[in-house]
Amino acid sequence: MTGRLRILGLGPGAEALVTPEVSAAMEEATDVIGYIPYVARVPDREGLVKHATDNRVEIDRSRHALELAAAGRDVIVVSSGDPGVFAMASAVFEALEAGPAAWRAIDIQVLPGITACLAASARAGAPLGHDFCVINLSDNLKPWAVIEARLRLAAEADFAMAFYNPRSKSRPEGFAAALEILKDACGDARPIIFARAVSTPEEAIRIVPLPDARPEMADMRTMVILGSSRTRLIARPEGAPIVYTPRSIPA
Amino acid sequence: MTGRLRILGLGPGAEALVTPEVSAAMEEATDVIGYIPYVARVPDREGLVKHATDNRVEIDRSRHALELAAAGRDVIVVSSGDPGVFAMASAVFEALEAGPAAWRAIDIQVLPGITACLAASARAGAPLGHDFCVINLSDNLKPWAVIEARLRLAAEADFAMAFYNPRSKSRPEGFAAALEILKDACGDARPIIFARAVSTPEEAIRIVPLPDARPEMADMRTMVILGSSRTRLIARPEGAPIVYTPRSIPA
Repeated sequence: MTGRLRILGLGPGAEALVTPEVSAAMEEATDVIGYIPYVARVPDREGLVKHATDNRVEIDRSRHALELAAAGRDVIVVSSGDPGVFAMASAVFEALEAGPAAWRAIDIQVLPGITACLAASARAGAPLGHDFCVINLSDNLKPWAVIEARLRLAAEADFAMAFYNPRSKSRPEGFAAALEILKDACGDARPIIFARAVSTPEEAIRIVPLPDARPEMADMRTMVILGSSRTRLIARPEGAPIVYTPRSIPA
Repeated sequence: MTGRLRILGLGPGAEALVTPEVSAAMEEATDVIGYIPYVARVPDREGLVKHATDNRVEIDRSRHALELAAAGRDVIVVSSGDPGVFAMASAVFEALEAGPAAWRAIDIQVLPGITACLAASARAGAPLGHDFCVINLSDNLKPWAVIEARLRLAAEADFAMAFYNPRSKSRPEGFAAALEILKDACGDARPIIFARAVSTPEEAIRIVPLPDARPEMADMRTMVILGSSRTRLIARPEGAPIVYTPRSIPA
């Protein structure tokens, strides 16, 4: 079997945040598979076939990628951010596990990328500079009760928290409920960051105290980062303050 | 004030994982500051002054960087991985907050990098493909009781977990204690990954069931990733199995 499959991350948006390893894979591939806007980021080239699909068909897309690689093609599956963080890698492995045994011999690699929470954290300062957790707020694939339990336990552990997929048109009420849980569980005015479209021309960063956070501050292009109880603000003479979490916790 | 300070991440080790944004900053800087092995990764060049320091002097190093930037230099502070994840960004902001008010006018940016846990996750498959947390196991800067509480709450939340700084020569007992807590709190045979020196010639990946994990499987160059209760293994005809966490949790 001579084909291969690489699942790669394009980072948050800017070309300057695409790793050379990922750029090289894009130059070598015979086939690229992914959601339309991510496939569009792969430069057109003779010998490259683009298979762009709509969102929410991750398993079909994964099977297609595995079939092409099994047939000898040099396939890349593209995600934004890092492919291993709420992106295509798990979907491909689900399809692999459920598929024909022969697929397990395919040469498969995951090529990491700059995930949205670290790009957003860098823009705000270093809010994830101490222990933190990363939670997908979408309840498409898990019960809401699991999300609620995780939010409360993360607050009890005093983790900083990064939230993917905070809010969609189809379920705006989920993020409102999440904010109410966090306000209740944290009980303080720690900073919360709404970082939209980081590293793109539409980038917008907004920092408010948790009690002032409102659901409409986020949309599906927004990464939300909530500090821990120890997260601090440094005011600056111009522009937004710096948000960071110190490295130490006193005994 | 015309100087500037950029805090940047060199990724886990391979040059192919350094972002173009970071490479450009290394080409522009007048001064580079950091721990000896990371400063050594910045190419020598006329007009670039290298200030390499030993480990554990992060605050001195940060003050020095801020002083140089305030004096008009184009300064980069280099970390491995991502500067915002248990690296130099929080140290610089601690020094900034405690320093002269004039420092707050310095142009400061954090340039993200591929952090060790995502590089390790990519090599193993997608163990961080669902909600996860990231914990520094060093008790240099926080009480051990905080670490223990966070491990137990993270297990209760059923997060996958990534551990930085699992074990050092000066405190080997900490990681042994952490493993005992995790075995007790998880109570199952989920996979744990020991990923050493990922993306370097010394890379070594070892995957064992949690009950078989032993402290000596990790050193300070090892990233340890523990699956959630739902993390799965896919055996392959050759080589290591794939470890991944599915995207969904059934109701």
